[in-house]
Amino acid sequence: TGRMLIDGQHEIAVASASGIRLQRLFVPAEQLAAAETVVRSWAGSELLEIQPLLGRAMERVAYGQRGKGWVAVAEQPRVRLDGIDLGPEPLVLVLDRIEKPGNIGACARTAVACGVGAVLVTDPICDVFNPNAVRASRGAIFAVPIVPTTVAEAASFLAQRGIVPHCARVEAPLGLWECDLRQPVAICIGNETRGLGDRWRDARAIDYCIPMRPPVDSLNASITAAVSLYECARQRQVGRSGGLGVR
Amino acid sequence: TGRMLIDGQHEIAVASASGIRLQRLFVPAEQLAAAETVVRSWAGSELLEIQPLLGRAMERVAYGQRGKGWVAVAEQPRVRLDGIDLGPEPLVLVLDRIEKPGNIGACARTAVACGVGAVLVTDPICDVFNPNAVRASRGAIFAVPIVPTTVAEAASFLAQRGIVPHCARVEAPLGLWECDLRQPVAICIGNETRGLGDRWRDARAIDYCIPMRPPVDSLNASITAAVSLYECARQRQVGRSGGLGVR
Repeated sequence: TGRMLIDGQHEIAVASASGIRLQRLFVPAEQLAAAETVVRSWAGSELLEIQPLLGRAMERVAYGQRGKGWVAVAEQPRVRLDGIDLGPEPLVLVLDRIEKPGNIGACARTAVACGVGAVLVTDPICDVFNPNAVRASRGAIFAVPIVPTTVAEAASFLAQRGIVPHCARVEAPLGLWECDLRQPVAICIGNETRGLGDRWRDARAIDYCIPMRPPVDSLNASITAAVSLYECARQRQVGRSGGLGVR
Repeated sequence: TGRMLIDGQHEIAVASASGIRLQRLFVPAEQLAAAETVVRSWAGSELLEIQPLLGRAMERVAYGQRGKGWVAVAEQPRVRLDGIDLGPEPLVLVLDRIEKPGNIGACARTAVACGVGAVLVTDPICDVFNPNAVRASRGAIFAVPIVPTTVAEAASFLAQRGIVPHCARVEAPLGLWECDLRQPVAICIGNETRGLGDRWRDARAIDYCIPMRPPVDSLNASITAAVSLYECARQRQVGRSGGLGVR
């Protein structure tokens, strides 16, 4: 439908600040006055309709067990690959066939923290704006272009911009810390069970592993993404004042 | 009761290999012969009773939605702080008042991958061997001493062994990458909502932050642990052949 539910005041505030078009906001009736004050401080919210709901109705609208918070209906952002600005030091996250919305959200949160310029979700299995993804991201999913696409389109996008795909594979001989991640890089993370498909193998891609001691033989997808992206951030920051900049 | 359920063949195998005393193993009736062959290859499993169950009964025993896998009943390991051997390069993980069993399990998995010698769970809110913790760890929770304890006992244990607590706090001015983590170190991670309590503030502790760009103002507890522990592993490995060793 091109629309989505955003659950939680913090998440809605991040969405609004990120330019997401909120269409309607539901708040518990007793919070109406407070909500009006908060919302009026958001840029572009002048016409946003705030609808007070009584407890029962609020519970029906809210996702999951909650019902004390705010819920917004908003337009899903539509980002075109060719409109993405990656800045002077491109860093991209690719999530290939990730199954759990919670993992997409967790990865988006870390990606934003690390200054990733775009998250490409190749051959998506779930809706990238699933309420669980939004919640796991604490709203960060709205603060970075997140683009459902195909492997072919993503690979071509990266190639055109001179970005080298770095594919996390447990069996790769090259360790993460031996990779030069100061160049334009995409970190590619595969499906939770099957890992990255062969479709991401090609002459330009570099396979790497995160070293681990047995009996651990794999890491969670969101952990793999976080350790990899933070190694990119570390390498880019070292020897510079600033780096990731504002905390 | 001092006992616990372990759900999943992989998790049970890791527990057995880690010296956990399995008391009983339930398997779907049609897998009995296969299970006997697998189990007989495990050291110390000669007397383990394997009980075949039909579908319905299996579903009742199995935790959550599953019922196709194996379920074991086992003794919870009891580890005393003074019996822990941390080896020549002590690395400890402290989880303070963590609420979600899944976070304890996810942290234990990364901790084992990074060569952590002990996980201290201070003022535990949930059972550290909760089935969700076991599952999130993929069994790794059995491969490291994991000790529920108090802040006072944990602090005294660390002090006695010359281990410096490094406390993850979003407001700390010192960045992770500026810490020297090659010395004996404990990484301390706080409650999901409230962070690390003041009880972990003292003259010996070093507060650090993981740099992050707005609007992200905090990271998930298991992500904070992973990025921190992998920075310890990286600093300890650099310039050495081996390091984390076997992958």
